Amino acid sequence: MSISLDSQQLVALTGATKVEGEYLGKVRSLASLAEAGPEDLSFLGNPKYATEVPTCKAGVILVPLDYVGQPATGQAFLRVAKPSYALALVCAAIEAQLWPKPAAGIHASAVVAPTAVVDASAHVGPLCVIGDGARIGAGAVLEAHCLIGVQAVIGAGCWLKNGVTIADYCRLGARCRLQSGVVIGSDGFGYEPAGGQIHRIPQIGNVVLADDVDVGANTTIDRARFSQTVIGRGTKIDNLVQIAHNVRIGQQCLITAQVGIAGSTTLGDFCVLGGQAGVAGHLNLGHRVQLGAQTGVFVDIPEGGFYNGTPAIPIGLERRLVVLSRKLPDLFKKVDSLVASLDAGGRSNP
Amino acid sequence: MSISLDSQQLVALTGATKVEGEYLGKVRSLASLAEAGPEDLSFLGNPKYATEVPTCKAGVILVPLDYVGQPATGQAFLRVAKPSYALALVCAAIEAQLWPKPAAGIHASAVVAPTAVVDASAHVGPLCVIGDGARIGAGAVLEAHCLIGVQAVIGAGCWLKNGVTIADYCRLGARCRLQSGVVIGSDGFGYEPAGGQIHRIPQIGNVVLADDVDVGANTTIDRARFSQTVIGRGTKIDNLVQIAHNVRIGQQCLITAQVGIAGSTTLGDFCVLGGQAGVAGHLNLGHRVQLGAQTGVFVDIPEGGFYNGTPAIPIGLERRLVVLSRKLPDLFKKVDSLVASLDAGGRSNP
Amino acid sequence: MSISLDSQQLVALTGATKVEGEYLGKVRSLASLAEAGPEDLSFLGNPKYATEVPTCKAGVILVPLDYVGQPATGQAFLRVAKPSYALALVCAAIEAQLWPKPAAGIHASAVVAPTAVVDASAHVGPLCVIGDGARIGAGAVLEAHCLIGVQAVIGAGCWLKNGVTIADYCRLGARCRLQSGVVIGSDGFGYEPAGGQIHRIPQIGNVVLADDVDVGANTTIDRARFSQTVIGRGTKIDNLVQIAHNVRIGQQCLITAQVGIAGSTTLGDFCVLGGQAGVAGHLNLGHRVQLGAQTGVFVDIPEGGFYNGTPAIPIGLERRLVVLSRKLPDLFKKVDSLVASLDAGGRSNP
Repeated sequence: MSISLDSQQLVALTGATKVEGEYLGKVRSLASLAEAGPEDLSFLGNPKYATEVPTCKAGVILVPLDYVGQPATGQAFLRVAKPSYALALVCAAIEAQLWPKPAAGIHASAVVAPTAVVDASAHVGPLCVIGDGARIGAGAVLEAHCLIGVQAVIGAGCWLKNGVTIADYCRLGARCRLQSGVVIGSDGFGYEPAGGQIHRIPQIGNVVLADDVDVGANTTIDRARFSQTVIGRGTKIDNLVQIAHNVRIGQQCLITAQVGIAGSTTLGDFCVLGGQAGVAGHLNLGHRVQLGAQTGVFVDIPEGGFYNGTPAIPIGLERRLVVLSRKLPDLFKKVDSLVASLDAGGRSNP
Repeated sequence: MSISLDSQQLVALTGATKVEGEYLGKVRSLASLAEAGPEDLSFLGNPKYATEVPTCKAGVILVPLDYVGQPATGQAFLRVAKPSYALALVCAAIEAQLWPKPAAGIHASAVVAPTAVVDASAHVGPLCVIGDGARIGAGAVLEAHCLIGVQAVIGAGCWLKNGVTIADYCRLGARCRLQSGVVIGSDGFGYEPAGGQIHRIPQIGNVVLADDVDVGANTTIDRARFSQTVIGRGTKIDNLVQIAHNVRIGQQCLITAQVGIAGSTTLGDFCVLGGQAGVAGHLNLGHRVQLGAQTGVFVDIPEGGFYNGTPAIPIGLERRLVVLSRKLPDLFKKVDSLVASLDAGGRSNP
Repeated sequence: MSISLDSQQLVALTGATKVEGEYLGKVRSLASLAEAGPEDLSFLGNPKYATEVPTCKAGVILVPLDYVGQPATGQAFLRVAKPSYALALVCAAIEAQLWPKPAAGIHASAVVAPTAVVDASAHVGPLCVIGDGARIGAGAVLEAHCLIGVQAVIGAGCWLKNGVTIADYCRLGARCRLQSGVVIGSDGFGYEPAGGQIHRIPQIGNVVLADDVDVGANTTIDRARFSQTVIGRGTKIDNLVQIAHNVRIGQQCLITAQVGIAGSTTLGDFCVLGGQAGVAGHLNLGHRVQLGAQTGVFVDIPEGGFYNGTPAIPIGLERRLVVLSRKLPDLFKKVDSLVASLDAGGRSNP
């Protein structure tokens, strides 16, 4: 990874209103105040780190307008309204440089069914396989080894990293971003034990991702038993998450790594699920529900609820129970002493 | 996904004994009573939804013989003994239509070792790689990008979806069904810390799946340190499950998503493990053991035990402790009040 | 898997100082004392199994120097100082036989960018894809379907099993061993909700694995927001583990299956994390920290701490609380009885 930005370019990217000091070199990387070296760009994003600025070795530092201090020799301060936002602008520019959009066209090694329709502006990387009747939208990027099933649809502007699998009949909206190893449209886990045998229930539905859905590495989303498993617009899903058949997730949710959501459960909009949380099947979670990490949910949760623990309870109660549970040794002693004292004559002698 | 079934075909598939009303169109999809539209097939699987039938918009509804009611205009009722079973018959027919068995033969882009033996009736999809001495049984289907290791064996009638990895020397029985991203035969996690270094213990065993084992997307099953990791006949494993080296799972078990089973643990037959449950290493779980979701098991469990919680305890006790733990605030208050009352004169004043 | 070792070869491999009895056949496999058959090698690794030796059917048994007993007819005892170490030597020899190092060279079906530099002694398997400017070190093995991104670096002697993904700009030290389905360098899960929208924060850092790092099947390690996600020298990571962006793990740690470590958290050296444990973001865990299985950590842990439970507490306290919590039914009864007794006259009547 080698970037190369001079002060003038950084001013243009960040919209800095004032430059103090002078850095004549190129910025090669980004780093925190404590770790930055002379060829790094750093930033004061949180006032509590202000004391680290004077000793910071970065060539260029983004500082807020009201920061009191001067750059060291050979160092430049770029004054901006919001350093972390300015940094994000720089990062976006670097990202565009590190990951330029691949050229349109289909790699010679890809195996594309004759009936598949690949937009002329899409990129299909090496050794991809695209099934009968699949459609790849305008400007979509499929990196190497992506597998697109029969009649699957990849919306305009989607970006599938290396090794993404979209199974038959599944559909992605526009601008979805999927990391390596994602599996969309695996069979739902539907079985019926009967007579000492376990019978498979056919899973004939599909998975539909709305626009702007992101999915993390090696996450799995199962196709519906029938109808659809649905992920709402703008929802972001982290790595190694399991979404079972017929789940419906609303818009703009954040689902952190290793979460599991069992079959037919519904989530509203703007929900936030902490890492390794689990939600049992056939439940309804309202809008803006939040779950702490490792929470296990076995009941419906109304709109706005913030739950924690296994089995999940409202977080205020959960926090209180945790505190009390740590006082159990004292409580047991106290009760034993009460019993002893009563046995001895009815009065406590502390 | 476009299906097309008229009333007559549905009668034939379901064995309906009586048709009421008439639906002249084609059924294009399946849906629940509440969500069905005019071109859908719906069903009354559970009497508690009977009130939804009169307002259901489905073109065709499967209703039980004793359901009291009439179809709307342009709608047909198919009377069947067991609507959910009748629906499964329809689903199986649709599945066969959506996923016709691929033609026998080896795709030109596959890389097959000269010493591998692929049955003439098997299908090997695009860009598969099959190692030296591997054997692919009669009627087996390997979709695109499957990787079959040296001397691995894929039984007759297995179906491996896109991107399944069966590592060297591992063996699948007949009719196993593996979802995308499955890894069978990764190294067991065997290390021995000694002298400030961590030494790898060679993992030279394999993995053996008996007949009719299903494995979910991105699940991993490690090869044995030596001898075999074994999954018994008819056992079904969901997505993102981890099965460590030398584990032995009995027949007809159901292992739900994100479960982890540590090394050398043994499960009996007919066990059911809830999502995200974990079982520590070197344990024995008897036949018909059940674990609730997120349970953590650190002790042997006898036949038929139903355990819950971390560390796991019999579910009756666990449920009782959960209820009591929520009353801890009251208990602490009660004890404090007892202490105060005794200090004040030996009597409680509520 | 077919091995073939005669007694003489086993003596040479194990350095056995004395042979008792005689086994004239070949050893074909390894097995425990209880399960071994006539063509197996077995071993007495733990004195508690000594009673199983006399009935053991193995052709050859590794026994300690001080074991008292004689081989059966047609059976050989090999006397060694440490049977489990001797067995490891045999296993290593078998492993080398089962997995001979593939020949140097690039398979004709691999897609290698013209600017990539592949060492002449490296092996690049079928259908691998290697990006612009990537470097593959001396003696490295890439099995089939490995994907190496732009400017990624694979150190000397690394072994990547089938289907490993190393994304753009990521770097592996020497002798790393990665199992199938590993994804190194997926985007960090960085989003900022603002104004009813969720904005993606560019993730422009990379992942760096030091020397001798092992990574298990389908594990995911995210690239840093900027700078690096770092795994220290000799650290071993099991299957289905999630390591988030900007995590830094020290040397010689053992991270068991399905663990999740959230963003920007730091681990010291020699840490051991049990299966399914989770560590929240922005925390510091010192050297030699140990976490029990399923532990959930939300606070910093000092060097040497052994924590358990969710939320995690020192294991001694956690064990005590578990014991006490199971006595809650008694405690509630005791308190009720105290209240009743005081109400009745100030004395307890047990």
